[in-house]
Amino acid sequence: MREVYVVGIGITSFSRLEYPLSEIAAYPAMQAMKECGLSKIDHLFVANMGASRINQQTALASAVVDTLSLTPAGAEAIENGPASGASAIKTGFMAVASGVHDVVMVTGAERMRAVNNLEATDFVATLSHPLAEYIYGVTLPSLAGMFTRLYMEKYGVTSRHLAMVAVKNHDNAMLNPFAHLHQKITVEAILDSPEAETNNPFVADPLRFFDCCPVSDGGACVILASKEVAQDVAKRNKKPIVRLTGIGQATDTHAVQERENPTDLLAVRGAAQQAFKMAGVKPSDVNVAELHDAFTILEIVESEEVGFFKKGEGHLALEKGLTSLTGQIPINTSGGLKGKGHPVGATGIGQAHEIVTQLRGEARKRQVKNAKIGFTCNFGGFGNNVVCLVFARED
Amino acid sequence: MREVYVVGIGITSFSRLEYPLSEIAAYPAMQAMKECGLSKIDHLFVANMGASRINQQTALASAVVDTLSLTPAGAEAIENGPASGASAIKTGFMAVASGVHDVVMVTGAERMRAVNNLEATDFVATLSHPLAEYIYGVTLPSLAGMFTRLYMEKYGVTSRHLAMVAVKNHDNAMLNPFAHLHQKITVEAILDSPEAETNNPFVADPLRFFDCCPVSDGGACVILASKEVAQDVAKRNKKPIVRLTGIGQATDTHAVQERENPTDLLAVRGAAQQAFKMAGVKPSDVNVAELHDAFTILEIVESEEVGFFKKGEGHLALEKGLTSLTGQIPINTSGGLKGKGHPVGATGIGQAHEIVTQLRGEARKRQVKNAKIGFTCNFGGFGNNVVCLVFARED
Repeated sequence: MREVYVVGIGITSFSRLEYPLSEIAAYPAMQAMKECGLSKIDHLFVANMGASRINQQTALASAVVDTLSLTPAGAEAIENGPASGASAIKTGFMAVASGVHDVVMVTGAERMRAVNNLEATDFVATLSHPLAEYIYGVTLPSLAGMFTRLYMEKYGVTSRHLAMVAVKNHDNAMLNPFAHLHQKITVEAILDSPEAETNNPFVADPLRFFDCCPVSDGGACVILASKEVAQDVAKRNKKPIVRLTGIGQATDTHAVQERENPTDLLAVRGAAQQAFKMAGVKPSDVNVAELHDAFTILEIVESEEVGFFKKGEGHLALEKGLTSLTGQIPINTSGGLKGKGHPVGATGIGQAHEIVTQLRGEARKRQVKNAKIGFTCNFGGFGNNVVCLVFARED
Repeated sequence: MREVYVVGIGITSFSRLEYPLSEIAAYPAMQAMKECGLSKIDHLFVANMGASRINQQTALASAVVDTLSLTPAGAEAIENGPASGASAIKTGFMAVASGVHDVVMVTGAERMRAVNNLEATDFVATLSHPLAEYIYGVTLPSLAGMFTRLYMEKYGVTSRHLAMVAVKNHDNAMLNPFAHLHQKITVEAILDSPEAETNNPFVADPLRFFDCCPVSDGGACVILASKEVAQDVAKRNKKPIVRLTGIGQATDTHAVQERENPTDLLAVRGAAQQAFKMAGVKPSDVNVAELHDAFTILEIVESEEVGFFKKGEGHLALEKGLTSLTGQIPINTSGGLKGKGHPVGATGIGQAHEIVTQLRGEARKRQVKNAKIGFTCNFGGFGNNVVCLVFARED
């Protein structure tokens, strides 16, 4: 199997973007091409979840190839709910690893704010089980709310812990020019003050407004290539070489209610174990990680399931500051989904963008010192289809 | 690069299917698993185009894994318009060729008859250019109608030639138990008789009702595996071994109007050339082919662009019977999209199902004698993203 490298990256700001969807995918792709100086792309994978439903557009991959004037390169759209981005990276890995292609573009885009929040919530809910969940009016916040309540009861997580995740990730987002939310918050303001009930109302008890990520538009791109190409690019642009060293993916029951223990996220655990095994590293080797905090509780739980902390101790590590920018394992330096935003199809590629930026030492005010190994966890469904990736800087 | 084999196949009847979409994908998958005796599947790719828009369902891949009790196997949905099926097979090829996986299931499903014909037509139209075509009310029949008129003027194709494609493919479909249309037609009845205007009205002049494929529900599956697995399976089930020897894909301008010569289907030409080159065979080596006859004109034009006949001579070959079941190169022995049906996301896998059936010698009354090399052309968009595959029986 050939080794696979990330040779170019690009991203839009995550926010409300009034551009056609194919241009939201094309803009970061052009950045990535410019960065690595490659104009010949063998193949494209386009990550997207909502084009058909929200933007009345199918065959998005063909539109993106045309927008970028990359015909006759082949292209497909990859969909795995909110884990579409990492799924597309993983598929791109196979395309290069197999030797079928040398240079593969993986670009993701979502334009969710083309519809109102109610429609966006309904759209996202279509990823739940069609007969056991969606038909009964389940939404993602409602699933996450029930999950959070169980977790609180079982492991002693409190609303204060949830708020601490939000505060940390908003702080990190303040240092990320591409982040959706540039809004400083404090536990005092969103939980303790008399105005908290108004400023931070319940969305799905016990989850409040600031426990939920925003609805974002956005795009992100990585270009993957063979070792030979990566070495050529590095000679030209003098940037450190980053290799995609581990890929892992696992699924769990589609309906959350069917899980033997609904507070276990077995797909996160399985995907992380596979990725670490392939990369030949341990969780404790990771210097920087992006976890999928669509809801604040998820950052805590994923930090346990991927192996950074023991089960039930993620909130204690958070309390101690171990996951902050200067902590032992900084999590969501980009701001995460909570602060940076969550354009669903692009999110996993945005995570990879942040990790590559960190490993190259290009993260400026949010730079983690001497980050050499990075990790991403992209969470599809409500934990039913999870993709984890490990990246390493090669010195 | 590792060699990749087809070790199991399955298909539903293409028709109106009143089952949940994930079950339409799961049924042929279970057939395929049963056939090859493999219960451990490393990974799934699910081909689908319309779930989000038509069936209010995203994350279909996760639903299919769960329906088949194949968790924790990873899975993604692959979308490339009506070429989603072959795109998923090509992606599955990479997964096995790379060595990441040994056994990969590629299953496709579409449930288009959940909406009425007008909505289905609009849904399919969303694959056109969003700003240059769709927004102005373009539909696929209207694009195909304009294309057909140009082709008639330039190359002397007549309405009679189009009708001959329909008659041939309906004849073949009569011999295929899975085909949507079991309806014998004649050129006399649909073109010459006084009732023809009523029986076969214009859809988009010069295309008539019998020039257009039906709107179908359906699913199809192939299981791909490494050589080692394929040899084990063959020992058990005593079926001939079929290898996926060539994959090719090419794109063209997203808007048809932007093509220098709109009667050239450059993406078909490019995809076929790549697939043949990789397989190390010539078009004249092919014994049986499935081409993407969503409209009758397309079978004629594709038979030229892939290299079976010279440009502008496909209709003459058809006249001579060269493409009939007993001809020099039988085309659409399954009935094609015209007779067998066109559940868009499953179509490319349905084509592969027919070719593998033929190469194994299991096609009964529609068997092509001693078929050793087979070919499929799956046409995405209006020729903007095309995937071609070559299969070979190994004796």
